[in-house]
Amino acid sequence: MREMSEVTVIGLGLMGQALAQAFLAKGHATTVWNRSAGKAEQLAAQGAVRADSARAAAGASPLVVVCVSDHQAVRELLDPLEDVLAGRVLVNLTSGTSEQARETARWAERRGIDYLDGVIMDVPQGIGTAGAVLYYSGPRPAFDRHEPTLRSLGEGTVYLGADHGLSSLYDMAMLTMMWSILNGFLHGAALLGTADVPAATFAPAVVKGMSTVAEWLPGYGAQIDSGKYPALDSTVDTHLAAMEHLVHESEALGVSAELPRFVKALADRAVAGGHGGEGYAAMIELFRQPAAAGG
Amino acid sequence: MREMSEVTVIGLGLMGQALAQAFLAKGHATTVWNRSAGKAEQLAAQGAVRADSARAAAGASPLVVVCVSDHQAVRELLDPLEDVLAGRVLVNLTSGTSEQARETARWAERRGIDYLDGVIMDVPQGIGTAGAVLYYSGPRPAFDRHEPTLRSLGEGTVYLGADHGLSSLYDMAMLTMMWSILNGFLHGAALLGTADVPAATFAPAVVKGMSTVAEWLPGYGAQIDSGKYPALDSTVDTHLAAMEHLVHESEALGVSAELPRFVKALADRAVAGGHGGEGYAAMIELFRQPAAAGG
Repeated sequence: MREMSEVTVIGLGLMGQALAQAFLAKGHATTVWNRSAGKAEQLAAQGAVRADSARAAAGASPLVVVCVSDHQAVRELLDPLEDVLAGRVLVNLTSGTSEQARETARWAERRGIDYLDGVIMDVPQGIGTAGAVLYYSGPRPAFDRHEPTLRSLGEGTVYLGADHGLSSLYDMAMLTMMWSILNGFLHGAALLGTADVPAATFAPAVVKGMSTVAEWLPGYGAQIDSGKYPALDSTVDTHLAAMEHLVHESEALGVSAELPRFVKALADRAVAGGHGGEGYAAMIELFRQPAAAGG
Repeated sequence: MREMSEVTVIGLGLMGQALAQAFLAKGHATTVWNRSAGKAEQLAAQGAVRADSARAAAGASPLVVVCVSDHQAVRELLDPLEDVLAGRVLVNLTSGTSEQARETARWAERRGIDYLDGVIMDVPQGIGTAGAVLYYSGPRPAFDRHEPTLRSLGEGTVYLGADHGLSSLYDMAMLTMMWSILNGFLHGAALLGTADVPAATFAPAVVKGMSTVAEWLPGYGAQIDSGKYPALDSTVDTHLAAMEHLVHESEALGVSAELPRFVKALADRAVAGGHGGEGYAAMIELFRQPAAAGG
């Protein structure tokens, strides 16, 4: 079958629809397919080519983007299409673990499919905007060949490296940051709420504080990479004393002390491990080990 | 005794020395005192007036700044000086809890001392720079009268309100954010370290991700204040599914799963409490309550 478009999108949930719309908006001839047909028809009205089958969709473009519910759904969908995918670039934007990404990469390699694993660091509404960040990992030539098309999905299109697990790992690392920030914000808002400070008043102060902490991270990163953690400002001992204050303050005010107790328990272990006189980055050694039982 | 200077600094540890130097650098006549004399002599060489006693120091200026080890040290120092402090503005930059700040405020009020409680959101090296943030709470007129002098300590000089506990609460809220961010960074660096990604490579990606999360906080703050938490993007249920992935990924990679387990346990309780279909801000209700036993 002749190739009728530049890019195919398989899987038209909210995110898949946003992907197809972003390709169309940038003028790329786009073929779409979904298990249930209704969503494809809406996109056809916006200029997409609607394929009659997953096989026809996969064969329609040199670049095939898949975005479905999970990796199991990816494999059920793609296993029967290995012959038609051979020689094309397959980009999987379905969420999963780094191990799943590496497994799918091995599957693809055995079949002569150029495989890129990607993650979308945004909600469907953000796709195609300047702020949207998407990470890709896998063979560099496959990325380079299709980068101009992929960049339609977001200006923050980043190639991470050949290891297919990298995009998923970055995703996980960003999620752990995100939840950490949100929980810190909620605990802070609860503390200030005891003095009737609106959370909307606290938010801008937090944002300013975050930009200060952000300035420290490259220095901490360099320490982690070097394995030496001289205290640039406060020692773990000093942090620990302030953590004890925070536990007591939270308890005295009747708000949750869970987060500061968790934070303090980590620092207690760092001090017990001999890191009390070092900087905060020394605590990486706790994070590199499997958690204690029940931890 | 006649007033010989504009501002007095009592307590010349690393931070107190930095405070005195910043006042001097901006041309303010500054009197200093410390329990041990050596540090005052160094500052005298830089232009400070060295007082012979805490009493003489307190009487030398209309604005008296105290920065010592803790609130107990503050009271031991100031209790004998109540007569000389009456009618002056006392600014306490010693770390402590909101309750300690309010206690000292009651002590000061009974003695006719205008009291401001302040916190320094920076290290000594940052004092006097454009980036330095200092919070003050207490009577507005006392702050307004001395704001130009206090601003010598940092461009980020902020008055929070009449409640003396506010500056300490903001300090605590910022610390809980700071440790949350640092722990999230360390866990993320440990995850990526399994694929040999340097922490120094991860740091700039985190900084970009933090700026994205920062954009959400005002919206979350408004939801917290309104008590209604419609899902603006993901629901707690959706977050929880991703948290489970993160726990498994951390375990599979042999790094600590403590942080994601902690995060997931909170979300589990939010779902059990009926918040699964709401946005993340609904979890404020968990943070507003005392933690479960052992939590």
